[in-house]
Amino acid sequence: MKCAGDIDTRDIDESCINIDPIQVGGRLTADAMKAVIAYGDGYSVCDQCRKPFRLDFIRNPPIDAFHRDLAAFVHMDVARVVPGARRGFQAVADTYVTKGDPVLITALSHYTEVLAVEGRGGVLREIPKTEGNLITADAAAEKIEEVIREFSRTPVLLFLDHFDYQYGNCHDVAGISKVARSYDIPVLYNGAYTVGIMEVDGRELGVDFVVGSGHKSMAAPAPSGILATTSERAGEVFRTTAAKTDVTGRTFGVKEVEMMGCTLMGVTLVGMMASFPHVRERVKRWDQELAKGNRVTEALRSIEGTVIRSEYPRKHTLTRVDTTGSFDRVAKTHKKRGFYFSSALKERGIAGIIPGATKVWKYNTYGMTDAQAAYLAVAFQEIARENGLTVTE
Amino acid sequence: MKCAGDIDTRDIDESCINIDPIQVGGRLTADAMKAVIAYGDGYSVCDQCRKPFRLDFIRNPPIDAFHRDLAAFVHMDVARVVPGARRGFQAVADTYVTKGDPVLITALSHYTEVLAVEGRGGVLREIPKTEGNLITADAAAEKIEEVIREFSRTPVLLFLDHFDYQYGNCHDVAGISKVARSYDIPVLYNGAYTVGIMEVDGRELGVDFVVGSGHKSMAAPAPSGILATTSERAGEVFRTTAAKTDVTGRTFGVKEVEMMGCTLMGVTLVGMMASFPHVRERVKRWDQELAKGNRVTEALRSIEGTVIRSEYPRKHTLTRVDTTGSFDRVAKTHKKRGFYFSSALKERGIAGIIPGATKVWKYNTYGMTDAQAAYLAVAFQEIARENGLTVTE
Repeated sequence: MKCAGDIDTRDIDESCINIDPIQVGGRLTADAMKAVIAYGDGYSVCDQCRKPFRLDFIRNPPIDAFHRDLAAFVHMDVARVVPGARRGFQAVADTYVTKGDPVLITALSHYTEVLAVEGRGGVLREIPKTEGNLITADAAAEKIEEVIREFSRTPVLLFLDHFDYQYGNCHDVAGISKVARSYDIPVLYNGAYTVGIMEVDGRELGVDFVVGSGHKSMAAPAPSGILATTSERAGEVFRTTAAKTDVTGRTFGVKEVEMMGCTLMGVTLVGMMASFPHVRERVKRWDQELAKGNRVTEALRSIEGTVIRSEYPRKHTLTRVDTTGSFDRVAKTHKKRGFYFSSALKERGIAGIIPGATKVWKYNTYGMTDAQAAYLAVAFQEIARENGLTVTE
Repeated sequence: MKCAGDIDTRDIDESCINIDPIQVGGRLTADAMKAVIAYGDGYSVCDQCRKPFRLDFIRNPPIDAFHRDLAAFVHMDVARVVPGARRGFQAVADTYVTKGDPVLITALSHYTEVLAVEGRGGVLREIPKTEGNLITADAAAEKIEEVIREFSRTPVLLFLDHFDYQYGNCHDVAGISKVARSYDIPVLYNGAYTVGIMEVDGRELGVDFVVGSGHKSMAAPAPSGILATTSERAGEVFRTTAAKTDVTGRTFGVKEVEMMGCTLMGVTLVGMMASFPHVRERVKRWDQELAKGNRVTEALRSIEGTVIRSEYPRKHTLTRVDTTGSFDRVAKTHKKRGFYFSSALKERGIAGIIPGATKVWKYNTYGMTDAQAAYLAVAFQEIARENGLTVTE
């Protein structure tokens, strides 16, 4: 069915249990859906924009209060909304990185951090991961020393994913930040997989910047996200324009250079705002989300030849699983090849796994009900049994 | 009435004739509204993202075809979607401007062009405007020569608004581009007030980049926009990442540095796409839009003491009017002061003018019906008469 022109109506989350690794935290709440309908039009939040004409000063809808709430939510001093977490990385990289500067990322950093640094001509250096795919404070300290030997100076910035996108593993942000602070290296906390689904306390973690993603973890439309920082750093990354033109002598007031003025002027922002009261509550129920995830993870582990590649026990609902020794073994002789697996999931109303993938893949159980988690767990086991794999109870 | 939490339901365009200078071209079409409802969720267009994992390769929804259609629409070779026109300016500035480089803007350039250049440390030089608030090819040529004398080299980039945001005046893009080309200066065409409301032919205009705004002129949600360019320049502004990390040796395939990978992963893009067939048709009816605008402009001119500050006759539906000698004169003795004017408009169901503004203000008649234009024209005259101003028929 088409919703408009040649665009199919999308009903995955209405009709299926969706376990797509990146989608589940970005599904709208009912309030966000209502707000999206009311604020679909382009510059819809600008009706009551008055002097000094900047998004975060608008009082109706209550965008100004939302900005303060956002900062408080991640325990930082100042927050801005941005068109996706990546635009937060870009704003920070633009502020601190110049050509040839060493910048630390990690062996599990997301590609958008790489692009942000590459855009400024920074030189990337990775903090290695352990065999268990973790980033440790020791490894960070060693890498900083290595950079100092190589560049005769410290890295200008350190990007750190609290939970990485590959394994959903938890990395020692507090420990690494402590090390970085001892060298005066600003730390950017990438909370794309945390802000909006679990509690995040940037101050306690000792980081300079907290970046979150609206469409990944805050039940908001894309592209949206937040960049929060300390009062100290706010004057740097949120500096206002200093330009004065030569002929007309124009100046541009309170516009912030890295934000390009205003960022999210409509549906994206209002969607975030409408979901926010729910998001603020749901982060308190993270333990329940982990319990549901564990139920599914245990079911997968009960299938012979299946290995959880993420750290175990799980600290996140995003998990990387290796079924080379189970579902992929079946694929080798199945008439549908690897597609039997996604077909079997689809028949059971389960979506979000790339069709044909039977080797190493990821799933995310965030936001499902207990009943859905139980159903999903049994579904994996059933598909295994139907295809001759042994399941231990 | 609230649509969600403390967010008022927005119904300005359902209940009023909206003449807000920036909003009228960004109102959604009915198809876009339907698409917005189906694709509200965060990463909603990513269901069928497959290798090489980039937004403009996705075939369902038909994002790949949309990108080709967009390029053809503005008569350029390659197009990308971006989170607002400003992010298009930023991508181009990031590609061509380094610290200390002279960059040409005009005396009527939008502030976002200024921020894009400031972000890269470029030195802004303005092409002056004529007394009639026009940017001419002669002024551009003179300014280029002035820059050469000052910097001993040509500007690295020239930003040019086809119609500026202050007056909605039409500037000589073809003439200025011709001059710029003779000096090998790349030209960025800012079509925030053209792409999506009138026909734009980037090739014929001789520009290197065409930037448009989804939420300003393409009936799309915010933030959205396009950046289109020639095959020759595409390799520069849409260059793919060259980064290779030191420890894991990771590379990042086809991700484009200036786009930060993917740009609009949900509602913003699908809204643009759903409106596009309508937008492609509506640009052909620009003369009808001008006729409606003229009807309103003539009504304002018929009110004693009122001066149209934009070029006249009008070539755009966005117009700057000076009512210091008419509506503002009334305000001086009216018990509601300047607010009588916005109140009187509001009583008549007309929205989009800042309350209290009676001196110099802007209106945009784009998208209204003939009947609405006639109603608006009479409304201005009625308000004038009711307040003792003479109206010449």
